[in-house]
Amino acid sequence: MTRAQASVRVLGVDPGLTRCGVGVVDVARDRSATLVHVGVVRSDPELPIERRLAAIAAGLRAVLEEHRPDVVAVERVFAQQNRSTVMGTAQASGVALLLAAERGLPAETHTPSEVKAAITGYGNADKRQVQTMVARVLRLDELPKPADAADALALALCHAWRSGGPAAPSVRGRGALTPAQRAWADAERLARR
Amino acid sequence: MTRAQASVRVLGVDPGLTRCGVGVVDVARDRSATLVHVGVVRSDPELPIERRLAAIAAGLRAVLEEHRPDVVAVERVFAQQNRSTVMGTAQASGVALLLAAERGLPAETHTPSEVKAAITGYGNADKRQVQTMVARVLRLDELPKPADAADALALALCHAWRSGGPAAPSVRGRGALTPAQRAWADAERLARR
Repeated sequence: MTRAQASVRVLGVDPGLTRCGVGVVDVARDRSATLVHVGVVRSDPELPIERRLAAIAAGLRAVLEEHRPDVVAVERVFAQQNRSTVMGTAQASGVALLLAAERGLPAETHTPSEVKAAITGYGNADKRQVQTMVARVLRLDELPKPADAADALALALCHAWRSGGPAAPSVRGRGALTPAQRAWADAERLARR
Repeated sequence: MTRAQASVRVLGVDPGLTRCGVGVVDVARDRSATLVHVGVVRSDPELPIERRLAAIAAGLRAVLEEHRPDVVAVERVFAQQNRSTVMGTAQASGVALLLAAERGLPAETHTPSEVKAAITGYGNADKRQVQTMVARVLRLDELPKPADAADALALALCHAWRSGGPAAPSVRGRGALTPAQRAWADAERLARR
C-alpha cells in the first residue's frame, strides 16, 4: 500500500497471549485515516509461557518489519482486569513495548476508556460502537474482526488523534480544532445519539 | 569461575522495572551449590516504559551472554501483589521469559511460597530466614544484598532443587532423597527451630 505523505503510521497492539490484536493505520493531519494492516498474532496455549511470548514477539516483529510504523500504541493493562489472564496480557504488553524500543520507536500506552473516548467521544462506549466508528473512519465495508483486531485499530487511531497527528500540536478543546476536526467532532456527536 | 561438572547452571530473575534481581548458581547433583554471579539490573524511573524495558532486557542479555545458564527461573507475579508496581513487574517478567526462549533456554516460574518452602522448608518464612539459608548454602560470609539479588539467588536454588538437579528425576518425599539431600533436610529442620 502506498504510504500517504505527511501522515503518521501507527501500530496499535491489543496485547494478549492467546490472541494479540495488531492494527496499522496511516493517519493524516486532517485526521483522516487509512487501513494498512489488521490481524491477530496467536500463540498455542499448550506451549510453555516463554515459548508463547516468543511466538507473540515473532509475530509482532514481522508486522514491524513489513509495515515499519512510526510509533507503537499498546493498550494499558490493569491488575483489576480479568484476573485469570491479566498477567499473561501484561507480559505480552511488555514484549510489545520492548520490541518498539529495540527498533528505536516511541511507544505509548492508552487505557480502554481513553480509546473509547477518542473513537466515539464516550468513555463508556460498548465494543460494537467502537467497532462501528472504526469501520466508518477507515471506510471498511464491514466491522473489523475479530474483536482483538478491531481494538488494535481503535488504539492506533486513538493514539494518532490524541497526539494530534503527524507533527501537529496536541488539540485541546473545540476552539483549537481544524475544520476537518470540527466536522469530525460533529459526526461523533451525531453517532452517539 | 570454573564450571563444575555434572552441575546445572540456573539464572534466577526477581523481576522488576526499577530493580530486577539476577542470580546465577551452579547446583550439583548432591544439591551443593556455588555462587556464580549476583547483581541487580536497574532502569531509570524517569524513562518511558518502553525504554525501561529495553534497559532491563539489555542487562539480562549481558548476564545470559556472560554466564550462559542452562535454564532460567523467574518469580511468578500475581495480580494481588503490590498494586502500583505489579504491572511493570509482570512486564519485566515477560521480557525475562522472552529472552530465555530466544536463546533456546527452558524457563520456569515459581511462586514466592515455593521459593520459601524450597529454601527454608517453610512457605511462610520471612525474607531474613530465606537470605540466611541462601548465604549458608552458598557459603557466603554475609547475607546477599540487596533483597532483590538475594531473592534471585533463592529462586535459582529453588528451581534447581525442585527440578532435582542436573538430569536427575524429581524428588518426591524423603524416601527418594540422596544422603546429601537427607542431610540437607535435617539441616533445614534444625534451621527452622
